[in-house]
Amino acid sequence: MPSISEKAQKMPASPIRKLVPFADAAKKRGVKVYHLNIGQPDIASPKVALDAVRNNTLPLVEYSHSAGNLSLRKKLVEYYAKNDIHVTENEILVTNGGSEGILFAFMTCLNPGDEVIVTEPFYANYNGFAMTAGVVTKPIISKIEDGFALPPIEEFEKIITPKTKAILICNPNNPTGYLYSKAELETLAKIVKKHDLFLFADEVYREFCYDGEKYFSVMHLQGIEDNVVLLDSVSKRYSACGCRIGAFITHNKDVYAAAMKFAQARLSPPSYGQIFSEAAVDTPASYFAEVLNEYTNRRNIVVEAINKMPGCFCPNPKGAFYAVARLPIDDADKFCQWLLEDFNDKGETVMLAPATGFYATPGSGKNEVRISYVLKADDLHAAMRCLAAALKVYPGKTC
Amino acid sequence: MPSISEKAQKMPASPIRKLVPFADAAKKRGVKVYHLNIGQPDIASPKVALDAVRNNTLPLVEYSHSAGNLSLRKKLVEYYAKNDIHVTENEILVTNGGSEGILFAFMTCLNPGDEVIVTEPFYANYNGFAMTAGVVTKPIISKIEDGFALPPIEEFEKIITPKTKAILICNPNNPTGYLYSKAELETLAKIVKKHDLFLFADEVYREFCYDGEKYFSVMHLQGIEDNVVLLDSVSKRYSACGCRIGAFITHNKDVYAAAMKFAQARLSPPSYGQIFSEAAVDTPASYFAEVLNEYTNRRNIVVEAINKMPGCFCPNPKGAFYAVARLPIDDADKFCQWLLEDFNDKGETVMLAPATGFYATPGSGKNEVRISYVLKADDLHAAMRCLAAALKVYPGKTC
Repeated sequence: MPSISEKAQKMPASPIRKLVPFADAAKKRGVKVYHLNIGQPDIASPKVALDAVRNNTLPLVEYSHSAGNLSLRKKLVEYYAKNDIHVTENEILVTNGGSEGILFAFMTCLNPGDEVIVTEPFYANYNGFAMTAGVVTKPIISKIEDGFALPPIEEFEKIITPKTKAILICNPNNPTGYLYSKAELETLAKIVKKHDLFLFADEVYREFCYDGEKYFSVMHLQGIEDNVVLLDSVSKRYSACGCRIGAFITHNKDVYAAAMKFAQARLSPPSYGQIFSEAAVDTPASYFAEVLNEYTNRRNIVVEAINKMPGCFCPNPKGAFYAVARLPIDDADKFCQWLLEDFNDKGETVMLAPATGFYATPGSGKNEVRISYVLKADDLHAAMRCLAAALKVYPGKTC
Repeated sequence: MPSISEKAQKMPASPIRKLVPFADAAKKRGVKVYHLNIGQPDIASPKVALDAVRNNTLPLVEYSHSAGNLSLRKKLVEYYAKNDIHVTENEILVTNGGSEGILFAFMTCLNPGDEVIVTEPFYANYNGFAMTAGVVTKPIISKIEDGFALPPIEEFEKIITPKTKAILICNPNNPTGYLYSKAELETLAKIVKKHDLFLFADEVYREFCYDGEKYFSVMHLQGIEDNVVLLDSVSKRYSACGCRIGAFITHNKDVYAAAMKFAQARLSPPSYGQIFSEAAVDTPASYFAEVLNEYTNRRNIVVEAINKMPGCFCPNPKGAFYAVARLPIDDADKFCQWLLEDFNDKGETVMLAPATGFYATPGSGKNEVRISYVLKADDLHAAMRCLAAALKVYPGKTC
């Protein structure tokens, strides 16, 4: 029997999904599980988008243009213009979710063995795409004590080598919820320009910025237009994770043309998701106002509850719908599994993502968890009650 | 400005799509273009599947299981059982089209630099996935004189090296329409077993076998169960290319588990396409009977017409909806471009795919074209009339 590839052997299992069998077993035992482990919003999608799919009159489901339907790309031009991002329909490549955009960025801009700097903790699946492309992720620690702010510029300079080809940021950040300031992004632009790097920015949580904080995009940075690739997705914006529609956007004509060759090889992005996404651009502003209000409330519930628990600390995130919290525990992986296997409070428990999976540096994040506040307020209160109760009795507690 | 990757520079442009700008220009000049260049069927999708999407009641479009919805996988078990392919729902991984399945097969089973043997001419996008995975395609010529039958076993033995890890076949074949016999597949099984290789089979044209010929799957081969990966797609089966739903199927538990890690990294296949595909399993047999009848007629029109043209030869394909024809021309790329740029017959012309793009061996296929017979009979007659007229006046004609 032939053996699987070395890549496949080394490929990490998803830290978000690896505990799913334990959650399934808990449910089979009749335990109610609050899912704070995955960024799957419970908010309804915009009616205008759902209706567009329901009212579609396609007689057959044809391939679309490899870059996505022109009509969708034109609507996306409108959408970005509203966010003060000025691009043309020929600078937007519609992808199979944001995931494919990240893979295209790696494949298009980096050779196998080249390095991409990522601040850690980072979205765990970046590792999978790096593995696929044969690219090496070089982490720089952003500290929980600093609320996960951009590490000092010296830290970047320290790890830049001739193999370094790009910096990848996620803003607002998954898993930390940190929102980069204009000043921080301008600092990044300086490094990018000085070392002639690509700057990839995953900005899929653009619509989720709290407390009146302003979102600043890498597309607003001046003087590095040809270095920037914006990676986007409709998944979070419209509670449409299953549409698998993302975007790869760049002013750099060579990079765009190269990405198109990879896009043509896989033929086209999904047609129904494109119908949804095109209609979704006409989602009324009131939808986002309500969503923002709801998530602000949810964030407050989680952050306030955790900071009241003995030995716990959770910075107050300004964006996305995640928070990383430090807990008084020996090992986040053991704790999260224990919550599902051995614990319940009145027949209920909570599923969290161990932060270890979001760090590349071994041993990091062992007392941290990522919390996705994607449930209704009542459920979040209940989940926090479970967490507080669990921390009192967890055998590996450290305070 | 940082430069794009070597892979991106080397990545071939799609031979099927590279002439699109010339076709667009012809249309702008008012010329009617018959599209025989791409495998985009014009047949309506099954109503039961279209309706399932129109009647969906999703309040939001969630991520599905990374392997695809369990309900879809269970229906696919039924579908395959009807084709005498016996698999469980835990051996099926639903992919973003057949394309992703091929990439997963390469990523999971081969290391960068490893070799996969493919009979040429072959589906051009295999090159793109090989490039992405850093895998080397090693072609073995199948000859138009033999109707593109499986090359002799000695040819395989000759090019097997310690780096050879897999053989990839497409059956029924794109671009040749050749349908492998049971005996040919058993020959392949012997090589696979002897050298402990993986056998990947792209069987997306299963439903399109003509003249009562029987389809034999790699899943029917005995003694190499753990070596086989079946790659499939709903694209052609249900005229649903834009659904982007495929399948990666194997009895090999290690290979399946490894592919799942790549699947988890990209989260999930598209939800609406899954709804379509699940309902499509209940497509009545009469649908396929009509489709088969229609395509048999179309094939006959094309093959008969071409074999009547002076200096032309087209083997009679037994499957898929493609044929490769040898024409009396100097250069297929020039000819296909000339058809769009400089030729029309009563305001009409035909778009073909130069076969050169389907060969890896330089210089091969220069007097061959791939014809997708995906248009109605009247349009095919008109397209053949255009081709016959063009061959009379083409400046680079060789007879």
